[in-house]
Amino acid sequence: MNVVLLEPGEIAPDGTASIEGARAAHVIGVLRAAIGSKVRVGVLDGPLGEATIEHVEGGRIALRCVLGETPPQPRLDVLLALPRPKVMGRLYGPLAQLGVGRVMLTNAERVERFYFDAHQLEPAYQHAHLVEGLAQARDTRVPIVTVHKSLRGLIEDDLDAWAPRALSRRVIADPGPHRSIRDACRDLGAEGRVILAIGPEGGWNDFERALLGGHGFEQVAMGARTLRTDVALIALAALVHDAIG
Amino acid sequence: MNVVLLEPGEIAPDGTASIEGARAAHVIGVLRAAIGSKVRVGVLDGPLGEATIEHVEGGRIALRCVLGETPPQPRLDVLLALPRPKVMGRLYGPLAQLGVGRVMLTNAERVERFYFDAHQLEPAYQHAHLVEGLAQARDTRVPIVTVHKSLRGLIEDDLDAWAPRALSRRVIADPGPHRSIRDACRDLGAEGRVILAIGPEGGWNDFERALLGGHGFEQVAMGARTLRTDVALIALAALVHDAIG
Repeated sequence: MNVVLLEPGEIAPDGTASIEGARAAHVIGVLRAAIGSKVRVGVLDGPLGEATIEHVEGGRIALRCVLGETPPQPRLDVLLALPRPKVMGRLYGPLAQLGVGRVMLTNAERVERFYFDAHQLEPAYQHAHLVEGLAQARDTRVPIVTVHKSLRGLIEDDLDAWAPRALSRRVIADPGPHRSIRDACRDLGAEGRVILAIGPEGGWNDFERALLGGHGFEQVAMGARTLRTDVALIALAALVHDAIG
Repeated sequence: MNVVLLEPGEIAPDGTASIEGARAAHVIGVLRAAIGSKVRVGVLDGPLGEATIEHVEGGRIALRCVLGETPPQPRLDVLLALPRPKVMGRLYGPLAQLGVGRVMLTNAERVERFYFDAHQLEPAYQHAHLVEGLAQARDTRVPIVTVHKSLRGLIEDDLDAWAPRALSRRVIADPGPHRSIRDACRDLGAEGRVILAIGPEGGWNDFERALLGGHGFEQVAMGARTLRTDVALIALAALVHDAIG
């Protein structure tokens, strides 16, 4: 935890806030902060800042916060064929750490139906793990997670509204001899977004590939190695962030 | 499992081999291969190739292999402050998937002593998880893992022999305004290696930083986000591989 993150409702208009539980235990036990100490704070989807510890009693800490800048919205979105629940559960933290605006979890032929019933898709589970990732990365921008039972519905009905095609680059990693992510993202405007599509463990089927290709997803090179979803996601997101700065 | 990997001792000079257990169960149950089917095979630290299934009986499969090229040795080495055992256990797979020549697990001030007693450091544990990662990535090059109780001993006594300074780039990621991994790796010869140093969760201390800096480790930019060890390792390894091709 590299920043103490507060829900917007936890901070009063005068900048005071009160925390208990895991966050308070971390501030006292790990950061060894005491009355008068300063700790980094942030408000979810709001500004980062610094807080002075004003009071500690019974595991509850009173903070006075001075807030500054709100971090920019990440310019990367991820379209991810829903992985196995256990893998999905482990991905929220890295996604939030790396900085992702929207995570679109979608069905595909090689996604098992029961994945959609997993507790790892419950909003409270998602929120807790995303916030943990943000606290690691010192960010406040909570990725928006949406779940789609139809890839076609997502691609044809929703995607353009979230990331207009003219202002975005859409990429899909493939082992073939394509151009690099860096080249595909060249000349993307400062407001432009990148949508990175990651397929299921068995890959997209031909229909899904054609659907993505028909809606602007360009195949980009990812080397000859076949990576597992979690490793591919982190590696490719790092390359996109590196390419768009 | 995208390739069935064999220990060198498992394949006879005439190219026949026999497998059972998890690999055989995967070939029959997941790949649905039968007599006459072909499957990808590889020999650890040796060539990749193709095998024909000649016989199946009682969970045991007889293969006849035709071997081809041996994959190149990865040009990336990782010097990693030993993380918590649970995190370490989860890193062997990604390291092997991404392609790493040598993994140097080292002590540092902010590494807890008991980490060195973890079962995740036992060679059999390491080998099993590394091979699983190689089978995912269709590689045969088993990363060499070495454990170092002294960072100083590693840096001063061992490192130059493994990756001569004149032929390698040594990089250490840092949040500061440094040049990129791409720029730091520019003009590295085709035989050149990159050594990527990743610190403990609390960071290297001043002595450790000076020691690394004094032995050619150049600070490279990694963005403003503080990533957890596992995410940082995958992200940075991907950037190195992208930079050196």
